[in-house]
Amino acid sequence: DVDELVESDDPEHPANLIPELCRGFYTIGWVTGTGGGISIKKGNLVYLAPSGVQKERILPSHIFVLPYPQPSVVKAHTERTFLRKPKQEGLKESACTPLFWNAFDLRNAAACIHTHSQHAVMATLLWKGETFEISHQEMIKGIRIGGTGKTLSYLDTLVVPIIENTPHEEDLTDSMNAMMLKYPDAAGILVRRHGLYVWGPTWQGAKTQAECLDYLFEIGVKMKLMGL
Amino acid sequence: DVDELVESDDPEHPANLIPELCRGFYTIGWVTGTGGGISIKKGNLVYLAPSGVQKERILPSHIFVLPYPQPSVVKAHTERTFLRKPKQEGLKESACTPLFWNAFDLRNAAACIHTHSQHAVMATLLWKGETFEISHQEMIKGIRIGGTGKTLSYLDTLVVPIIENTPHEEDLTDSMNAMMLKYPDAAGILVRRHGLYVWGPTWQGAKTQAECLDYLFEIGVKMKLMGL
Amino acid sequence: DVDELVESDDPEHPANLIPELCRGFYTIGWVTGTGGGISIKKGNLVYLAPSGVQKERILPSHIFVLPYPQPSVVKAHTERTFLRKPKQEGLKESACTPLFWNAFDLRNAAACIHTHSQHAVMATLLWKGETFEISHQEMIKGIRIGGTGKTLSYLDTLVVPIIENTPHEEDLTDSMNAMMLKYPDAAGILVRRHGLYVWGPTWQGAKTQAECLDYLFEIGVKMKLMGL
Amino acid sequence: DVDELVESDDPEHPANLIPELCRGFYTIGWVTGTGGGISIKKGNLVYLAPSGVQKERILPSHIFVLPYPQPSVVKAHTERTFLRKPKQEGLKESACTPLFWNAFDLRNAAACIHTHSQHAVMATLLWKGETFEISHQEMIKGIRIGGTGKTLSYLDTLVVPIIENTPHEEDLTDSMNAMMLKYPDAAGILVRRHGLYVWGPTWQGAKTQAECLDYLFEIGVKMKLMGL
Repeated sequence: DVDELVESDDPEHPANLIPELCRGFYTIGWVTGTGGGISIKKGNLVYLAPSGVQKERILPSHIFVLPYPQPSVVKAHTERTFLRKPKQEGLKESACTPLFWNAFDLRNAAACIHTHSQHAVMATLLWKGETFEISHQEMIKGIRIGGTGKTLSYLDTLVVPIIENTPHEEDLTDSMNAMMLKYPDAAGILVRRHGLYVWGPTWQGAKTQAECLDYLFEIGVKMKLMGL
Repeated sequence: DVDELVESDDPEHPANLIPELCRGFYTIGWVTGTGGGISIKKGNLVYLAPSGVQKERILPSHIFVLPYPQPSVVKAHTERTFLRKPKQEGLKESACTPLFWNAFDLRNAAACIHTHSQHAVMATLLWKGETFEISHQEMIKGIRIGGTGKTLSYLDTLVVPIIENTPHEEDLTDSMNAMMLKYPDAAGILVRRHGLYVWGPTWQGAKTQAECLDYLFEIGVKMKLMGL
Repeated sequence: DVDELVESDDPEHPANLIPELCRGFYTIGWVTGTGGGISIKKGNLVYLAPSGVQKERILPSHIFVLPYPQPSVVKAHTERTFLRKPKQEGLKESACTPLFWNAFDLRNAAACIHTHSQHAVMATLLWKGETFEISHQEMIKGIRIGGTGKTLSYLDTLVVPIIENTPHEEDLTDSMNAMMLKYPDAAGILVRRHGLYVWGPTWQGAKTQAECLDYLFEIGVKMKLMGL
Repeated sequence: DVDELVESDDPEHPANLIPELCRGFYTIGWVTGTGGGISIKKGNLVYLAPSGVQKERILPSHIFVLPYPQPSVVKAHTERTFLRKPKQEGLKESACTPLFWNAFDLRNAAACIHTHSQHAVMATLLWKGETFEISHQEMIKGIRIGGTGKTLSYLDTLVVPIIENTPHEEDLTDSMNAMMLKYPDAAGILVRRHGLYVWGPTWQGAKTQAECLDYLFEIGVKMKLMGL
C-alpha cells in the first residue's frame, strides 16, 4: 500500500516533518497565503507538499512521494513519475517541484525550502543588481558554501544571486539552474519580488541555512533603513 | 433544539472554525480590542460571531446562526431573522453583519473576514485616493478576481478600492456595496483608517485572500518607507 | 485557610486569570523583564501579582489578596492590610499597588493593567507635551470615557495624559491621581519613558482598553515615522 | 551513571530548563540559525548546550556537564574536563563555553545567555564607539550593577561595553574578559555585528537582564530611527 509511504509514528519521518515545519514557517511569515514550502529527499524518495493549500494545515496524507532520480524517459519540468499521490480531490504537487529538483540535482541537497519572506523580497528590491551582498555579520558563519559544503568565515562576503521573477513558477527553473551554475558557492537563490530558494545537506541544515539567510536579509534591509 | 446548530465534533464545522480562526487572527493583530471577525456561510446557514467581545475567547455557544437568504420581508441592514441566538446575556450579533452580507450577495462568497490590521490601515493612509494599487509582487498571484474567481497573474496590477470610514459600522454597507459594483474585480474593500473586508469562495479561500492582501499592504507600506 | 482565596478550578477566578493574562501580555512584549502586570478586583477583594518576578511564570500560589476598600486606619501608599500573602520567601506585592488603587478608587475600575509596551514609550517620546492625542481611527471606538463609561465615537479625539516618570514607582501615585482628576474622561495614563496604566469596568474591559490604546499608540508612532 | 546528571522530573533542573528556555529564545529571534544559547551553573556543576544545533530542538540528553571550577591543570580556553558528554555522534560543546566562563569567574554568575538578537546587533552598528549608552528609561531599573549586584536607579545611565567581533567565537574570550575588568559595573558585553553576552545571579536573573537589555537596545535603535 503506497499510503504506508506517508504513515509513520516517527516525528522525523518526512511526511510528519513537512507539516510540522510548515506550521513553524507559517508563524514567522514565510508561507502565508499558501505560498512557499519545503521538500525533503530521503534515500531515493522525495516528499512534497501540495500546491495552493494552506501550508500550516497540511496533513501527512496530503504528501506526494516521488522517486529520485526520476526515470530518464521523463521530460524535465513537464512530466513526473510519482510513487504516491494524495487521494483528496484537487491536490496537485507543488509548483516549486522543478526548483526543488535543481537543489537536489546541482547541490546534492537533501531538503529545499522556498519562502515568501518579506525580508527576502525587500532585499531584492533594495539590491537592484544580480546579487545581494553582505559582510561582517556573525550570522554569515552559519552559511555553507554552495549550501551543503563547509561554512563560511566571518571574514567572507556573502553573495546571494537574484533571478528575475516570471508569471509561472516553473519558468524559474532554467534561470535558477543557470544562476546556480554561475555561482557554484551560492547557498540560495533569491527571486526578485518573490522570495527565496534555499537548501541544505539535511532538513536541519536547510532550515538553518534559511534562518541565517533570512536574518541577514532582515539586518541588511534595516541597515539600509538606518542609512548604514 | 437550535443549539445543535452550533454543536459538532467536526473541527471544520463553522461554529468550531470561527473561534479557532479568530484565535489565529488575534495572534497576528487582526482582531485585537474586540475588533474584526469572520462570518462563514454553509448551505443556507450563516454563522456569525457576537459584537464587542474578545475575539480570541469566542466559544461555539456564542455563535449566531441566520438563514441565507434572509426572508424578503426583512428590511435590509436594520432587521434580521435568526435561527439561533446565544443564551448569554448581552451578546449582540456582529455590527459587521450587513457588510458580510454584501460579500455573500454580490460575490457569492462563502466566508467574509474583517480585519483591523495595521498594514491595511497604513495602506489607506499612504494611498490617499480611491484605490490601493500594487504590481510586480509574487503574492498578487494569490488574489482571485472579484475574490472568488480565477487568480490574478503576476503581470496584473492589484487594485483594492478604499471607502471612507463612518461613525457606525453598518453605515459602511451602502458605500461598500457601491464600490463592489463599481470595481467588480475587487477582491476586497479597504476602509480608510479602519481596516479591510475580504471574502472567498470557501473559508480557506477567504483566509488565503486575507493573508495575501495583508502581505501586499505590508510590503507596499515598507516600500514607501524605503522610498521605493 | 487563606490559601483557599487563590485556589479554584474556575479558569476565570482572578488567581487563575492573572497568571494566564500575564503569559499573554509577555508574548506581546508588555511585561518582559519582570515589568508591568495586572490587578483584578472582585467584590471586595483585590488580587495582585508579586513584584520583580517573571510575569509569564506566575502561579496562583504567588498571588496576594487584599481587602477593598482598605481599612481607614491604613496610611495611603505606605501601609497595606492583606488577607493572604504567598508563602514563598522574598515575594513582595507589586510596586504598582497604589497606582492600581487609583483606578479602583477614582474610576470604580474592576481591573487595572500596567504595560511597558514600547509603543506606549515611543508615544511619550514623540508627543512631548502633557497629552498623547489621535483622531480619525476606528479603534478609538473601542475606548471608554474615563475607562469605564460609554465608548467614544469615531468622531472624538482620543486624549491620553502623560505624567513624568519618577525613580520609584509608588512616587507616581500622586501625579497619576492628579492627572486622573484633571482629565476625568481619560481612559488611561501614560508614564513618560516608562509605559501605560489602563483599567476597565471588568478584566475583559481592561484588557480591551489596553489593546485599543496600544494599537493607537503603535499606529500613531508609525504615522510619525511615515511623515503623516 | 553520568546520564543521571541530566535526567530529572523537575522542570527547573538545568537539563530541562536549557531546552525550554532555548525554545522561548528561538521564538523571539535570539537563537535562530543555531546561534546563541544559555549555560547554567548550579552548585559546582555547569550545564551546557551543544554547538551548531537547532537551539529550539535541544533535548536534556544533549546537555554537557562540566565541573566548576575546572581543575587547575586544565589550560584556559583550549582544554576542558567534562563530567558528562552526550552520546549522540558529532555533538561538541558550545563554542561560547569560555565566554560563559568569564561570567562565572568574573561576576560569580549562575547563568549566562548569548543572543544574536538583531536589536543588539543594530545597537552595535549605531553606537560606533566602545559603549552603548542610554538613560531615562524605566527598564534601566531592571539592570543589575555588574549583572549580579543591586539594580540601577532610573537616574543612572546604562553603559554596555562593545567588543569587536573575531572570526572564532573563543577568540572573544580575552577581549570580553578585559572589558569586564575595565567596566566592573557592566551587566553585559555587546559583540559588534554579532550579539550580546549577559548573565545573572540566577537563571531567572540572567533571563531578566537579557530581556531588559534587549528592550533597551530595541528602544534605543527606534529612537535613532525617529531622530530622537
